[in-house]
Amino acid sequence: MSKVFNFSAGPAMIFPEVLHKAQAELTNWLGQGVSVMEVSHRGKYFMELITQAEKDLREVYHIPDNYRVLFLQGGARGQFAALPMNLIGEKGKALYLNSGHWSATAAKEARNFAEIDEITIVENGDHTRITNLDFSDIAEQYDYVHYCPNETISGVEIFDVPNVGNAVLVADMSSNVLSREIDISKFGVIYAGAQKNLGPAGITLVIIRDDLIGHARQATPSIWNYATQRDADSMINTPPTFAWYLCSLVFKHIQAIGGLKEIAKRNAVKAQTLYDYIDSSKLYRNVVDKENRSTMNVTFVTGNLELDAKFVAESTAAGLQALKGHKVLGGMRASIYNAMPLEGVQALIEFMKKFEAENS
Amino acid sequence: MSKVFNFSAGPAMIFPEVLHKAQAELTNWLGQGVSVMEVSHRGKYFMELITQAEKDLREVYHIPDNYRVLFLQGGARGQFAALPMNLIGEKGKALYLNSGHWSATAAKEARNFAEIDEITIVENGDHTRITNLDFSDIAEQYDYVHYCPNETISGVEIFDVPNVGNAVLVADMSSNVLSREIDISKFGVIYAGAQKNLGPAGITLVIIRDDLIGHARQATPSIWNYATQRDADSMINTPPTFAWYLCSLVFKHIQAIGGLKEIAKRNAVKAQTLYDYIDSSKLYRNVVDKENRSTMNVTFVTGNLELDAKFVAESTAAGLQALKGHKVLGGMRASIYNAMPLEGVQALIEFMKKFEAENS
Repeated sequence: MSKVFNFSAGPAMIFPEVLHKAQAELTNWLGQGVSVMEVSHRGKYFMELITQAEKDLREVYHIPDNYRVLFLQGGARGQFAALPMNLIGEKGKALYLNSGHWSATAAKEARNFAEIDEITIVENGDHTRITNLDFSDIAEQYDYVHYCPNETISGVEIFDVPNVGNAVLVADMSSNVLSREIDISKFGVIYAGAQKNLGPAGITLVIIRDDLIGHARQATPSIWNYATQRDADSMINTPPTFAWYLCSLVFKHIQAIGGLKEIAKRNAVKAQTLYDYIDSSKLYRNVVDKENRSTMNVTFVTGNLELDAKFVAESTAAGLQALKGHKVLGGMRASIYNAMPLEGVQALIEFMKKFEAENS
Repeated sequence: MSKVFNFSAGPAMIFPEVLHKAQAELTNWLGQGVSVMEVSHRGKYFMELITQAEKDLREVYHIPDNYRVLFLQGGARGQFAALPMNLIGEKGKALYLNSGHWSATAAKEARNFAEIDEITIVENGDHTRITNLDFSDIAEQYDYVHYCPNETISGVEIFDVPNVGNAVLVADMSSNVLSREIDISKFGVIYAGAQKNLGPAGITLVIIRDDLIGHARQATPSIWNYATQRDADSMINTPPTFAWYLCSLVFKHIQAIGGLKEIAKRNAVKAQTLYDYIDSSKLYRNVVDKENRSTMNVTFVTGNLELDAKFVAESTAAGLQALKGHKVLGGMRASIYNAMPLEGVQALIEFMKKFEAENS
């Protein structure tokens, strides 16, 4: 079989080194004669795994000591509900910044549990751009301010951290977690579904400042009660052990290749190479303002729906998988998360050139 | 390495045939050149997988047409919260039958969301036994009646279905799902965490009668809203695809070896063999009434705490893994779910005989 490159938006590509290690030891983990899937989560070896995984993640992501790390179930959408349950307190409401599909969906879910104000910060004209990131004048009316720094569907990334004064900032980093170094201390809560940059679908990372834990309402499911899960090592119930194990391998792999400095450098080169080509071409167009072009999800169109469909069919046949854009937007989308090599982007550009030559 | 047998209560042993197939295709699923973990859950191949998985499960478990099958996240403990959110309606309260640790934990969680009455149906004297299963006189005061037909910690199984008249019966079958044929039509909801008889930890099966869907309160997380998930093919958010895939292989394997008739026969032989030996020995004792001895979790003690500890240490060294009883009860527990072969039970009995000879 010729080499394939997988541009899926999520579940997405996993580092081949991680998958090969998981495959090699799938039926015999640590020489115990059983799979990592078959052992007790409270057993010695699995407890060592999660302790090391947290240590590695803290080192890679420079997580300050006054932040707790939780691994939960239910995906980012589970957290959409868990956040108001845990964080709404004296002020009685939260502010959601709407930059596209996912931040709007987070606000919609939160409204089932609390009073939510929403401000649109994206402008969709000829170019899509972020209009405002300063909310320091109003943020302190709210128990927290929520935003999504990378909108996977439109391919819009917010690189500057919103100014919310002393208010609590919450970020859904599902699609750009661990893609570069960030200053964690600017955030109250960072959360992310695993299936883009952390591992397989089915586990959710929550990084939360100590003082924000312990204020959950009574009607909070215990699997999402941050205090309960902090006290139980994220094991108030049986955790998704195999997904956690794969995340632990991803953290080790990021360390091995040079940490987030190296990851960020690679991501910047991949994205720049692809955007530069798109901008230079006569056929393809990306409509996101240069300041907000996502490093993770590169969207493009030909401007002709039939040609878009042809592009998707022919690229798939050529081994460039899952380039079809999200159904709400159409067009094409190349998701180039941490695990995508530059080689994959180069193969995509070669195909795009050939397709342009054949169709103009 | 000499052969090991894994008696873990959960995450538990998975059929070796399933693990070997998963290992073989871990990096190249269906010849696509990518892992099943790396593809879109909404893509053609994964959608085919879940359609076939539901078809196989329906056939294996004889699920009537007026029942829906959902695959969710959050474990059985997530459902402890989701049940009152979805099912509490006009009557405003539910009845929980307490037969041990897990049914009591379910009631405790449900109390965060609704008024819950609780009746203890277990007697812990010299022998542990179930005292009553007829609630037909009071059940209709409640929106539903909840019970747990297999308590993994004490090794107590309830083989008869409680009589609740026309009320809705809800069963946490986490540890005995698919262990034998049952009459699904007697239940309103059956739910189960996967990590004993279905697959790896991280996915939860819910089988629910049509007419019970659609009554969730506003403050229900969308990932647990049964109507939302029914309408979204259990994919309102990214599902735990790898766990779902493994469940699909388990269903296929059960079909291949003869379905639940064969599974039930094997389970009965394994349990009977082990209980018969325990009853015949002078050293070991099982304190559960014969009518309620679990087919899945066989608990036993020597009556001497030091000797119990020695048994656990020496059996582990001999390749008989995870026989230590749950911390709330102590002693030993052999979990012999569907995937445990009779050979494992025989190896355990050989060890128990040797240990008895050396320690009496």
